[in-house]
Amino acid sequence: MPTRLSNYFLRTLREDPSDAEVTSHRLLVRAGYIRRQAPGIFAWLPLGLRVKEKIERIIREEMAAAGAHEVHFPALLPREPYEATGRWEEYGDGIFRLKDRKDADYLLAPTHEEVFTLLVKDLYSSYKDLPLTIFQIQDKYRDEARPRAGLLRGREFTMKDAYSFDYTDAGLDTSYMAQRDAYERIFTRLGLSYVIVQADAGAMGGSRSEEFLHPTVVGEDTFVRSPGGYAANVEAFTTLAPPTRSYEKLTPQEVLDTPGTPTIQSLVELANEKHPRPDGRSWTAADTLKNVVLALTHLDGTRDLVVVGLPGDREVDMKRAEVAFAPAEVEAATDEDFARHPGLVKGYIGPWSPEGAVLGEESATGIRYVVDPRVVDGSGWITGANIDGKHVFGLVAGRDFGWDGVVEAAEVKAGDPAPDGSGPVELARGMEIGHVFQLGRKYAEALGLKVLDENGKLVTVTMGSYGIGVTRILAIIAEENNDERGLVWPESVSPFDVHVVATGRDQVAYDLAEEVIAQLEDARLDVLYDDRPKVSPGVKFGDAELIGVPRVLVVGRGAADGEVELWNRRTGDRRTLPVAEAVAELTA
Amino acid sequence: MPTRLSNYFLRTLREDPSDAEVTSHRLLVRAGYIRRQAPGIFAWLPLGLRVKEKIERIIREEMAAAGAHEVHFPALLPREPYEATGRWEEYGDGIFRLKDRKDADYLLAPTHEEVFTLLVKDLYSSYKDLPLTIFQIQDKYRDEARPRAGLLRGREFTMKDAYSFDYTDAGLDTSYMAQRDAYERIFTRLGLSYVIVQADAGAMGGSRSEEFLHPTVVGEDTFVRSPGGYAANVEAFTTLAPPTRSYEKLTPQEVLDTPGTPTIQSLVELANEKHPRPDGRSWTAADTLKNVVLALTHLDGTRDLVVVGLPGDREVDMKRAEVAFAPAEVEAATDEDFARHPGLVKGYIGPWSPEGAVLGEESATGIRYVVDPRVVDGSGWITGANIDGKHVFGLVAGRDFGWDGVVEAAEVKAGDPAPDGSGPVELARGMEIGHVFQLGRKYAEALGLKVLDENGKLVTVTMGSYGIGVTRILAIIAEENNDERGLVWPESVSPFDVHVVATGRDQVAYDLAEEVIAQLEDARLDVLYDDRPKVSPGVKFGDAELIGVPRVLVVGRGAADGEVELWNRRTGDRRTLPVAEAVAELTA
Repeated sequence: MPTRLSNYFLRTLREDPSDAEVTSHRLLVRAGYIRRQAPGIFAWLPLGLRVKEKIERIIREEMAAAGAHEVHFPALLPREPYEATGRWEEYGDGIFRLKDRKDADYLLAPTHEEVFTLLVKDLYSSYKDLPLTIFQIQDKYRDEARPRAGLLRGREFTMKDAYSFDYTDAGLDTSYMAQRDAYERIFTRLGLSYVIVQADAGAMGGSRSEEFLHPTVVGEDTFVRSPGGYAANVEAFTTLAPPTRSYEKLTPQEVLDTPGTPTIQSLVELANEKHPRPDGRSWTAADTLKNVVLALTHLDGTRDLVVVGLPGDREVDMKRAEVAFAPAEVEAATDEDFARHPGLVKGYIGPWSPEGAVLGEESATGIRYVVDPRVVDGSGWITGANIDGKHVFGLVAGRDFGWDGVVEAAEVKAGDPAPDGSGPVELARGMEIGHVFQLGRKYAEALGLKVLDENGKLVTVTMGSYGIGVTRILAIIAEENNDERGLVWPESVSPFDVHVVATGRDQVAYDLAEEVIAQLEDARLDVLYDDRPKVSPGVKFGDAELIGVPRVLVVGRGAADGEVELWNRRTGDRRTLPVAEAVAELTA
Repeated sequence: MPTRLSNYFLRTLREDPSDAEVTSHRLLVRAGYIRRQAPGIFAWLPLGLRVKEKIERIIREEMAAAGAHEVHFPALLPREPYEATGRWEEYGDGIFRLKDRKDADYLLAPTHEEVFTLLVKDLYSSYKDLPLTIFQIQDKYRDEARPRAGLLRGREFTMKDAYSFDYTDAGLDTSYMAQRDAYERIFTRLGLSYVIVQADAGAMGGSRSEEFLHPTVVGEDTFVRSPGGYAANVEAFTTLAPPTRSYEKLTPQEVLDTPGTPTIQSLVELANEKHPRPDGRSWTAADTLKNVVLALTHLDGTRDLVVVGLPGDREVDMKRAEVAFAPAEVEAATDEDFARHPGLVKGYIGPWSPEGAVLGEESATGIRYVVDPRVVDGSGWITGANIDGKHVFGLVAGRDFGWDGVVEAAEVKAGDPAPDGSGPVELARGMEIGHVFQLGRKYAEALGLKVLDENGKLVTVTMGSYGIGVTRILAIIAEENNDERGLVWPESVSPFDVHVVATGRDQVAYDLAEEVIAQLEDARLDVLYDDRPKVSPGVKFGDAELIGVPRVLVVGRGAADGEVELWNRRTGDRRTLPVAEAVAELTA
């Protein structure tokens, strides 16, 4: 039986929802796919549920092909497993926590590594049971600070999350590649372009980590790629450090007057005017060493300062800094922070002063000093002398100052060399649609998941974690497949295979439509049938365009002559042809 | 491709789980269908998920046949809609509440009347849009005080909940019957016996309310049924009141000494000995009027007393009392309560004393007095005289004492007459598996859901609510379909259609098994294949019995001769037959 619009639960809207920031949100609400319940929380109407289920079916098929078994965990879980891995605290405000009537702590799970690990620990004990990959398609919760863009970043969202269990590193590689390959097949079937980028693996403590990003201007993530095929999330980009230089031929550092130059630009201008570069070229911002003071708040609530030294032509990228200093929270130092550290002369901060080392754990201030990878042994810099109105020129790294560590916190710029030598990178924006991740032994160690190996020895299991955002994918498909009149679904996820529109007041059209639909359904096609008797053709066509089933069959004026119109929603092409030909084309 | 046990995520257990109170829980855990995560919260393993999906598929098919459209609401919902209907408070400790990072109140929805009502209000405005029935299959949450019996009463559980919307009472009746009929078809397809009983409609404020109860000794509900077809939940049972009598020929009441008779039994014994009944028959407990003092705690937190007068051969049924006094909470009065009311002489309480009325809002104590329906005008009683050691005999209702109301709070006993005159009832235990309920206009009024009728007049919509407990049904099916060796699924919900067991070390058996499976799968049968090479036949058979697929095909010793064994798990019947015959039988 076709789904008849005359009694379907659907109401298309003329007006855009007032809170819609992006096209997908606007159209999915207007066309009757979803409906907002609270910030970042949506109800699924019948049309939306159909598309969601089609996406889930494709994912399930590819998970089965990859040998993964489906399970299903609750959303409501007790605190203990997340406590054991430290994530109960690490999530901070980002998750929903609650108590039951006995005052026991629970959370709405944002992801399920812990309980999958415990389940396998609970049931399996031998290497013979492995490898194992299990997955679920399940609703997850995150208490986002700024839920936005409809389904693109919700507080309740559906994910497919899979976890692999192996007892050797080689086994993990195999399991990882099986999921990675499945993801490529899934996105291809969904008609969704993607770039696989290296991702930061740090925070979760694993080794290999890649994100599937869909390139889109509404994307929240910035990634880089080189002509030679390198691609990485900016957070994971690593800087190609220049070669170190010998100190031998370098002149000693020199403190010079640079009054009124608290900014890099004013410093470079004054330096070129008053202290020109000996080789005759101009000083640039890249010759200066900028020292940015950051405040770190650690998990235990303590707060301390760190100074990042980086070339003056770059800013600190706070997202990269967050990864570099994780799990601490990072922010710019405040006036109060400076007030507590009078040794830092604002605008003229540097690692060195005529009186000795200023920054670094062994220095006068005792403040930790970390530098950008471009600050290599033998590199010379203009930087603050920690005296108001004075900078030091020719300060040589390694000779005149040291550091406590090297961090990737500087912004990445178009043209920066890819770390693998594959050429200069360009920057692009994308939205994360999948993530494959070698967790390694972190969770298995924290929760005691071990098995007996071939020699009867207990070994810790090594794990992978693999996620796809189902509801986010749906939104991205909608974002990429629409025009000014509405949605245009790819066939693989369209809520129906064919949208049959009967028009006019002549019963012949409605009778012929029923006949055609019977034939389409015999060929196992899902049909949406606009059988509304008193609705004008214009309104019916408008709804068809808004709803976005890609193949529309119009049965109207030509019905008496056995002619129908086949309408390609994507191209706009409309052709009149005999009904048998139309059916043959649709069922081909 | 068959599901191969050699790499399936399954571990059957030898030992019963220590916390399992009922057979279904014990077997579902041992056979690897579910795994406990927290009290009343379970994870679904692959086998369990398959059975759950089969049940859901049957429900979806029957919902579609009944013209209901599927939607899906979030579990996490804001407080406001539940506040508007008063349920945010009414649920008390029974739901999970939480706050988001902005301190806004949310709940994990125990049921969704409010948001379905708002959704329809949001999208529909005309009688032409109605009737409408929409449903979801969704995970719900209740913070049960005593989660018990595995899936039978969980804190997270899956339900199908449907809601109907009509603008006339006749329309509601039609929508109600469509769901009721669908439920009958669903339970029949699931092989689940049921009794449709009248249920209490009071607390939710609706009119017609029926429960589908599955008769089972592990059931939590008591229901009554008569030979003439009457069936009701005890909470909904109504007492057939005896006829009233004229006072004319009745003698005046008489206060008599009854020392040491604080109990009904001691009172009846003494009365028969010292104050024999004038007509020569014996006094029985049914001739006495017992007055039970209850304490009610109201929603606003206030507490007051009420006295229930009922025949002395019956106790107060606290579940019936809860319904009678809802939404107040009911408990027996405490010693403190009695201490605060010295007018109540414990053991000798009655509505009357020689000094005047003792109970009732107009009486000396001012305590509300309500009576059982059997206390009719003209009925005479032996009851307490509010004097220690004294009772009053021949106290006539209506003549000597009055009451503030009539309540159905007395226990129902086997042999009580059905209210519809269909004969004496028997009592049985059952488990609620479905509930159909005419909500009427309560929710639509509270939330302002109105539509324009044929005359352009705004009318309030009338609603129905229809629920089936999916996970509970699964447990009940398991509870009813097992033997000492394991589960025995009905074919309609079995995780697989056929369980093929290959045994021995001869490759011929495994090759033949693969051939047979290919043929079974061509006939669209789902096959579980025990291909484990080093596992003994005994263990394989034991697992097959525990897992409970009803049709088992054993490919073993006879394989070389083209013979296999067909095993009916339910009857235990095992027959050796040629492979072609076995396939023909299985695919018939």
